[in-house]
Amino acid sequence: MIPRQMPVLDNIRIVLVNPIYGGNVGSACRAMMNMGLSQLALVNPRPEMNLLEAATMACHAGDILANRTVYSTTAEAVADCGLVAGTSNRGGLYRDHAQTPRKWAPRLLEAALDSPVAILFGSEDNGLSLDDLALCTQFIRIPSSEAYKSLNLAMAVMVCAYELFVAAEVFEPPQERSAECPSSMREAMFAKWRRALLDIGFMTPDTADHMMLGIRRILSRGTLTEKDVQILLGMAAQTQWAASHIPPKP
Amino acid sequence: MIPRQMPVLDNIRIVLVNPIYGGNVGSACRAMMNMGLSQLALVNPRPEMNLLEAATMACHAGDILANRTVYSTTAEAVADCGLVAGTSNRGGLYRDHAQTPRKWAPRLLEAALDSPVAILFGSEDNGLSLDDLALCTQFIRIPSSEAYKSLNLAMAVMVCAYELFVAAEVFEPPQERSAECPSSMREAMFAKWRRALLDIGFMTPDTADHMMLGIRRILSRGTLTEKDVQILLGMAAQTQWAASHIPPKP
Repeated sequence: MIPRQMPVLDNIRIVLVNPIYGGNVGSACRAMMNMGLSQLALVNPRPEMNLLEAATMACHAGDILANRTVYSTTAEAVADCGLVAGTSNRGGLYRDHAQTPRKWAPRLLEAALDSPVAILFGSEDNGLSLDDLALCTQFIRIPSSEAYKSLNLAMAVMVCAYELFVAAEVFEPPQERSAECPSSMREAMFAKWRRALLDIGFMTPDTADHMMLGIRRILSRGTLTEKDVQILLGMAAQTQWAASHIPPKP
Repeated sequence: MIPRQMPVLDNIRIVLVNPIYGGNVGSACRAMMNMGLSQLALVNPRPEMNLLEAATMACHAGDILANRTVYSTTAEAVADCGLVAGTSNRGGLYRDHAQTPRKWAPRLLEAALDSPVAILFGSEDNGLSLDDLALCTQFIRIPSSEAYKSLNLAMAVMVCAYELFVAAEVFEPPQERSAECPSSMREAMFAKWRRALLDIGFMTPDTADHMMLGIRRILSRGTLTEKDVQILLGMAAQTQWAASHIPPKP
């Protein structure tokens, strides 16, 4: 049985995308239990992943490993989550947007009062894909030396879990709060906007991915509630309707 | 070549006492390099330790592994160190004295400006021995869940190294400072006091270990400079001289 001591931490899901090594998955389980976390999801783990190694490294955290959920896509693994945070040490469009785990911890804990919160970790060889990163509302950059930036997968889980555990001990829930919209609904809204913005010629299929990352970034600066998303969905629908009136190019 | 970027971090020595698993030693090397540390010392590593596993887990931090120093006793591994911090999640005489790595980080960095600083980690099965703990001027307790307190060895190294790295980025050296006395000189002083206090009947061989831990604790509350230690050494010598005048029991 996994002890339930800190409900807010129980609502935080560690999502390992396409992991290779059982030893890392097991080490991540132990790190999670050390730091009061319990929800583990694996997305499309490699078929050759060594589960015996995982159990050995999980040590007394075997229940977290046994109770893992497995998904074939990242979108499914985070569908019910409000905040979705992605870990990355690379640059790119989202770079300025990334914060340290210490900085994000209070916001993740607050969001976890209302709905599950996901933290995504990419595979040992490639990290998170652009598609995975697109699902994220937050980006986490673990401080590390320029001489060797890339942490082992389980170590990255430990640093994030440790910061959440330390923050949870001094965390006081705010009186008034607005809940994040679930990922699945948010994704439906972004898909609608994507079609609408293509239809009105704001972007082309070539530039769409890049533009949509920019729009996602703007819309994840603050909380995005279900009501917000309904409004944005309505705007996109109306935009698409307007686009249907654009005369075809000769 | 190990990059030298942050001199204060280069002066911090990770000391693994009697480690069992090569994988953990290698993982610790990677964690160290991720967090800008470079000095690894092993005390009495198990002969069966798997060095191939160590190299695999060290990944791009193989130079730290290759440049490790090996000692047969903990006292030798820390002889030139000022502050000596021991990690433990157990209770005992020193419990009130233990602080989190976040709390200690600034003091360790300050001490590392003047002389090497050691952080001791015990073996995977038994942790640090009482003899090892006696050498410590500071105790580190990593926050962890009551449900599963004990971190994997390399994970414990990561959490401490991470806190030092994060603290080092905002660390400003104080203008005025007094250097810690080296461990070897401090130990000679404590040995002298032990004999003196036995000679004057302040303690018996049965209670000596316990009493000396208490005295060590008092004397490590603040900095202990070479001059301080010379004074304490003189007091002990004089006490012993006085004891030589106690008439033998009839």
